[in-house]
Amino acid sequence: MELQFLGTGAGMPSKQRNTSALVLKLMQERGTFWLFDCGEATQHQMLHTTLKPRKLEKIFITHMHGDHIFGLPGLLGSRSFMDGQEPLTIYGPIGIEEWITTTLRISRTVLQYKVNFVEIQEGIIFEDDQFTVEAKLLHHVIPCFGYRVLQNPLPPQLLIEKAVEMGVPKGPLLAKLKYGQDVVLENGQTVLSQDVTAGPVKGFSISILGDTRYCQASIELSRDVDIVIHEATFDAGTEELAKPYGHSTITQAAQVAKESGAKHLIVQHISARFLPSQAEELRKQGLSIFPSIQVAEDFAEYELKQDELKRIKNK
Amino acid sequence: MELQFLGTGAGMPSKQRNTSALVLKLMQERGTFWLFDCGEATQHQMLHTTLKPRKLEKIFITHMHGDHIFGLPGLLGSRSFMDGQEPLTIYGPIGIEEWITTTLRISRTVLQYKVNFVEIQEGIIFEDDQFTVEAKLLHHVIPCFGYRVLQNPLPPQLLIEKAVEMGVPKGPLLAKLKYGQDVVLENGQTVLSQDVTAGPVKGFSISILGDTRYCQASIELSRDVDIVIHEATFDAGTEELAKPYGHSTITQAAQVAKESGAKHLIVQHISARFLPSQAEELRKQGLSIFPSIQVAEDFAEYELKQDELKRIKNK
Ligand SMILES: [Zn+2]
Ligand SMILES: [Zn+2]
Repeated sequence: MELQFLGTGAGMPSKQRNTSALVLKLMQERGTFWLFDCGEATQHQMLHTTLKPRKLEKIFITHMHGDHIFGLPGLLGSRSFMDGQEPLTIYGPIGIEEWITTTLRISRTVLQYKVNFVEIQEGIIFEDDQFTVEAKLLHHVIPCFGYRVLQNPLPPQLLIEKAVEMGVPKGPLLAKLKYGQDVVLENGQTVLSQDVTAGPVKGFSISILGDTRYCQASIELSRDVDIVIHEATFDAGTEELAKPYGHSTITQAAQVAKESGAKHLIVQHISARFLPSQAEELRKQGLSIFPSIQVAEDFAEYELKQDELKRIKNK
Repeated sequence: MELQFLGTGAGMPSKQRNTSALVLKLMQERGTFWLFDCGEATQHQMLHTTLKPRKLEKIFITHMHGDHIFGLPGLLGSRSFMDGQEPLTIYGPIGIEEWITTTLRISRTVLQYKVNFVEIQEGIIFEDDQFTVEAKLLHHVIPCFGYRVLQNPLPPQLLIEKAVEMGVPKGPLLAKLKYGQDVVLENGQTVLSQDVTAGPVKGFSISILGDTRYCQASIELSRDVDIVIHEATFDAGTEELAKPYGHSTITQAAQVAKESGAKHLIVQHISARFLPSQAEELRKQGLSIFPSIQVAEDFAEYELKQDELKRIKNK
């Protein structure tokens, strides 16, 4: 799993930060990537990465403001043009299906793949043998969702060499050991499953929160996760603007990470009022509350390794 | 008048060429600029120019394909956010009003200025004391318009110093001379209007054609204009693709310029199959038919000076 930010700005594009888009890369896990929000020119940002639109499997929209959705029609069209054939599922608030279908109809865009729309409510919105995604309403000026993405525990792995060393013959006994059963060998010796398996390995967990004021739902979605992605449109000095506009400060984002017991915080949706050189200042404001904070930049990519959040050097 | 190309690609954005958008700068003439088509990320392209969205007065849409309209909602929203207050008029095919109003409603975008929609048919679609704009249907795979923009002749200018030198007193006689009347001075001397006025000066004329096959409407819209803007999605080597896709080759664009008696041709809507280094090759293919051809690049800017088309060096 890697996270790549394609747009970390607020409201409007600037030269430094595009409007919202965040990629959850699941190439090793399922050979695809998921997209959270899709501001205008998200497909343009992708041109500067290794992402292939045909590998895009799911899009999660937090809310219907233009800076989070206006890149969708272009990306859908280009995915088709670039030979995307697999179905694509779009999760989002009420209105997303009407807007996309109206836009495709009026622009005469014919897609060569199927788009499934899931207009969501709070609760589990997706679940398969690998992942569970839960949504909750946050506290913005219009309905806005946050998402909690949980990777299911990875099944125990059989340490084959060790089992063979202990005299287990190839065949059905190995399968039993893998799935937790202890076995007795022909020579009467007992081999315990726990001695020849590793795991189960805990999956990763991440909360990806849309535009919001400080709220309880953010904390609940982020409970004990590895990474919280929270907006930080304002800083301590502009705090009085955050609430009326339905946004948060960096310190409120840090507060959410702290109260939820999360390991790491990455903030995005940074107002253009902050110069690139002020990102470190912003980070420091939050550090007094929560110890692991990154201020995302466009194209920044992160991975989680043994509970450590690492920036991938790709630029 | 200057012309600045913001998007010269076809169908999809590439790193070199964005989707369609062309600015007709009329800052000296009326303190505003007009936009022809608005592909996704047109507002992003503007960030790299001196163009201020609040100075945008009119948008002309050639057709409803996504690569010509998907930048509209974001640009309209940002124009409002950046304090644009003057009304804006959008001319385009049927469907443009439904799409924009649906998009603004669903994205909860509230504009602080009025948008007037003019869903056009062939004929004169705009006329004031300075300009006349005529539209005609071209020959694409969906309804697609071309536009002919005519600047009215500039009124004669009174050469005041010369008039005073010839003994004309300040006052009403000067006004008579300016508007074509000859006058007799108190000393009995006749002063001819033509001796103390310059002009009228011919205005500029330009045809801005949307996606199209070679067609008569293009030639009619371009009759005797200073500049033809024509698409050239294909070249002589890919000619067999042009017609089924409703597009033209560089040689067909040159043919239109030649048959219409135009002075200059600028081609745009260049397929990403052509590398930047092949632009000159493309130009040469057309030069055998028509002598003044430019292959537009993103951000290229041109002005007309005494019938000469000059590239403005701004990069
Ligand atoms: Zn936002
Ligand atoms: Zn086109």
